Amino acid sequence: MSELSPLQKARYVYKPKLPKMLRNGISEICVKEGEVTQSVADQEKIKALFPNTYGKKEITFEKGVNTSLSKKQVVGVILSGGQAPGGHNVVCGLYDALKATNSDNILYGFKKGPSGLIEDDFVEFDDAFIDQYRNTGGFDIIGSGRTKLETEEQFKIAAEVCAKHGITAIVIIGGDDSNTNAAVLAEYFATHGTGVQVIGCPKTIDGDLKNEDIEISFGFDTATKTYSELIGNIERDANSAKKYWHFVKVMGRSASHVALECALETQPNICLISEEVAKKKMSLSQIANYIADSVEKRSAKGMNFGVAIIPEGVVEFVPEFSTLIAEINELLVGKKADEFNALASWEEKYAFIKKGLSEDSFKVFDILPQAIQQQLFLERDPHGNVQVSLIESEKLFSALVKDVLAQRKAKGTYNGKFNALHHFFGYEGRCAFPSNFDADYCYSLGYNAFMLIQYGYNGYLSKVSNLSKPADQWLAGGMPITKMMNIERRHGEDKPVIRKALVELDGKPFKYFEAHREVWAVETSYTYPGAIQYYGPVEVCDLTTRTLALEKGE
Amino acid sequence: MSELSPLQKARYVYKPKLPKMLRNGISEICVKEGEVTQSVADQEKIKALFPNTYGKKEITFEKGVNTSLSKKQVVGVILSGGQAPGGHNVVCGLYDALKATNSDNILYGFKKGPSGLIEDDFVEFDDAFIDQYRNTGGFDIIGSGRTKLETEEQFKIAAEVCAKHGITAIVIIGGDDSNTNAAVLAEYFATHGTGVQVIGCPKTIDGDLKNEDIEISFGFDTATKTYSELIGNIERDANSAKKYWHFVKVMGRSASHVALECALETQPNICLISEEVAKKKMSLSQIANYIADSVEKRSAKGMNFGVAIIPEGVVEFVPEFSTLIAEINELLVGKKADEFNALASWEEKYAFIKKGLSEDSFKVFDILPQAIQQQLFLERDPHGNVQVSLIESEKLFSALVKDVLAQRKAKGTYNGKFNALHHFFGYEGRCAFPSNFDADYCYSLGYNAFMLIQYGYNGYLSKVSNLSKPADQWLAGGMPITKMMNIERRHGEDKPVIRKALVELDGKPFKYFEAHREVWAVETSYTYPGAIQYYGPVEVCDLTTRTLALEKGE
Repeated sequence: MSELSPLQKARYVYKPKLPKMLRNGISEICVKEGEVTQSVADQEKIKALFPNTYGKKEITFEKGVNTSLSKKQVVGVILSGGQAPGGHNVVCGLYDALKATNSDNILYGFKKGPSGLIEDDFVEFDDAFIDQYRNTGGFDIIGSGRTKLETEEQFKIAAEVCAKHGITAIVIIGGDDSNTNAAVLAEYFATHGTGVQVIGCPKTIDGDLKNEDIEISFGFDTATKTYSELIGNIERDANSAKKYWHFVKVMGRSASHVALECALETQPNICLISEEVAKKKMSLSQIANYIADSVEKRSAKGMNFGVAIIPEGVVEFVPEFSTLIAEINELLVGKKADEFNALASWEEKYAFIKKGLSEDSFKVFDILPQAIQQQLFLERDPHGNVQVSLIESEKLFSALVKDVLAQRKAKGTYNGKFNALHHFFGYEGRCAFPSNFDADYCYSLGYNAFMLIQYGYNGYLSKVSNLSKPADQWLAGGMPITKMMNIERRHGEDKPVIRKALVELDGKPFKYFEAHREVWAVETSYTYPGAIQYYGPVEVCDLTTRTLALEKGE
Repeated sequence: MSELSPLQKARYVYKPKLPKMLRNGISEICVKEGEVTQSVADQEKIKALFPNTYGKKEITFEKGVNTSLSKKQVVGVILSGGQAPGGHNVVCGLYDALKATNSDNILYGFKKGPSGLIEDDFVEFDDAFIDQYRNTGGFDIIGSGRTKLETEEQFKIAAEVCAKHGITAIVIIGGDDSNTNAAVLAEYFATHGTGVQVIGCPKTIDGDLKNEDIEISFGFDTATKTYSELIGNIERDANSAKKYWHFVKVMGRSASHVALECALETQPNICLISEEVAKKKMSLSQIANYIADSVEKRSAKGMNFGVAIIPEGVVEFVPEFSTLIAEINELLVGKKADEFNALASWEEKYAFIKKGLSEDSFKVFDILPQAIQQQLFLERDPHGNVQVSLIESEKLFSALVKDVLAQRKAKGTYNGKFNALHHFFGYEGRCAFPSNFDADYCYSLGYNAFMLIQYGYNGYLSKVSNLSKPADQWLAGGMPITKMMNIERRHGEDKPVIRKALVELDGKPFKYFEAHREVWAVETSYTYPGAIQYYGPVEVCDLTTRTLALEKGE
């Protein structure tokens, strides 16, 4: 029923590039064991929680005689959480390595995410099926879902499903939480002698699954290139029409890697970084004044236009705003919510709010534009909590900036024009055709994941590194997931988790941004990346992110 | 200060393809005169208004000895109105032909649109300047503006500016209105014996400057490909997550060509076409029910997700909504606006509105979500009129659909989930790097515009046709603008204008859509076009729109 686009047909025949050590055929891949590992922190506690899978060795693959046991493998793969470009290629790489090793091997795909494993709902892949998804975006090959595999009961069912179908290994493609759960499942399988192995693959467009072992999570490259294409186009529009300030919100609730990478790619006038806002304990008014300074300086040079990037989650990092949200959540508990909802007019509700909030929080509330005030109170989740993700922070900040500018105009320090337009980019980038980088990286992750299975590893993350270099210089191997873990407080309990990577304010990408942003705020220094290219010059098609290049000192 | 992206550097060296007849060098281009033309309607009136420029011959260029007079040309070029990808290439093509003809020829660029001519504000182009803009998006080379050249006084100043600088011709790059004004200016220059020629070039991403002579306006191809990239990505996301309905508004106030082309490229579940809404005199409720039918049928098949394309201007085509807007504009004239604004609460305002509107219009008003009701009354332009362009029609329709579904759920005919997300794509596509098609077409339009100047034509539109074929089969020439004109009522006066091209409901593109949309509404027939490609296979990089292919019967 679907018609294939010319690009989709062309992408089907693209051959993803593998690391050199995986290019010699299955029979020529051997394992080189590295050092015994320990977790990045809380070693004793993590060791106690993972007696069977802790302290294993890092491994890399290299050219040599394949010494793995010949055993029929039946593997199940799961796509977990939000979409990221390249997920299909992980499955394709896994499938190709599995079939090249033994044509009797079987790959199952559990449908709609982790719940597919629990519900015993899967498909079996064959060539014709796989070939429809090579080098394409999306997770539609089997669907994805957000069910978390974390309870003993789920693990028990998972073991039963595996036993029923003779499954020898599970590959979980997911973010930090999903890979944490993969490690726990691996430990469970080992403890219970199921013989089923678990391998994880690092996915998330947010870029926050990253550490000394994992250089980048897949999808981040393609998603940020897609957003940067659009931001660059908007910058060019702003610089042509010369009459609008564009406030562009980009995805990224907990970390600002996406915003930062887009800023490095496009050189906008303003980019907020949530981690910096938190560190400096910035208030809404400070942020608004910071942006207004750029508007004013540019206006003085005759440029009543600009572009500001706003990370999706930034308001949650503003201390006074978080406090306000917490107070609102308290204010609307139980009967008080009914009382509030019964009030007919906004005026009465406003009076109720004024009475219920602390003086400081009411001050914060009171500077918000009315539309945002109403959003905070009228749209709440089933638990009565404010839905922070629904707050249109791009409109919030442009409204606050407008107020600041009106005050400055009244004082006579500013005499420009300020017209704002708003955008939110997120869903546009999660299912794009993967860039060559993501197509290659993901295919390698999947191929590599199968080699880890074949060599009997359990509780490992598929690891491909040296990624800022051309693919033939990439290194393939595996890392025990427990190495990346520490203990964190989650929902009132100490939990072993993979640490989420935030933007490091003393890291090279942020430092580069910091060194340039004063000039960018005043001048028009826009860079126009254009659409992702899959063919053509290498420097146009194959480079990965500025973030990684800067991290690598390139 | 700006850093050049790898793609921008690569695009600098792209050589746009000219029609074959323009490839032999300037000395080998001769004119073939065609038939004497007459306007598409109102011939006597148009002829009377354009005594000097009416009834001229269509011309095409062909290979042969160049017989144009050798005369030093000083040309001024103007970018008029909204940005469209390829504008820079029109300037580059014009510059290259002008300099190839005589290196003493001069090209000026008037700054910030038509006002640059009146304000005598321009730059002189040279190679280094031009080379920075080859095959790039945007109008930032000289800026654009929306000043209309239409008064006798403006024409007089224009003539003086031309005389002062020895300007021999003006090239106006614009939409239907700008080219109408170009024709009037051409006639003025002829009547007053200035000797200055005027040539127009057909620009607009909206696609509504199109007729039997002009197959497509430039920018439409690139803009719709950019929007289709994003819509395709969102479709893939919808089909992966399987939990959201995406309502996507696309630019296009007066015609739905953009929405239709995007629908042909991406095969969404729903696409509204404003012209059909007007023809069938559809109500908001009919439209909401039409969309809800798709939601319900898909839900019955287990698919609680979908994609709907909404053309920006559609609400203005809903008769009952236009009436409502007209009544609101009446209601808020003069003192009544002050009275309304003095009311403190929305409840009081609502009562005021209820009293002031006709019963029918109040019914329409009353089914709108409150946020839209408030938008209509709180955000008005300096004349007190409703700002229809600010109405978030994507949110309006999803809210109406939600209401319809709630009613159906109450009746027990529908039992699905409906969660909506909203997008607006417009500014993202106006300044993209032009597709190969737009890069080639625009360069040809500019090159061709100079040949029209060199051969002494005035009041012509640069015409390049046979565009659904490869560039070497394109035809280059010129058409008197008066041929495309008719008389229309504008602001209470009869005016000679180029007729705006709306989507023809009996045309082949709409017929194709109509024949498929019932299936698309229920099945998942999405097509994923991906990002614009500039390199790689011809079928991926060089094809123009589905609309044009269908119009040509291909």
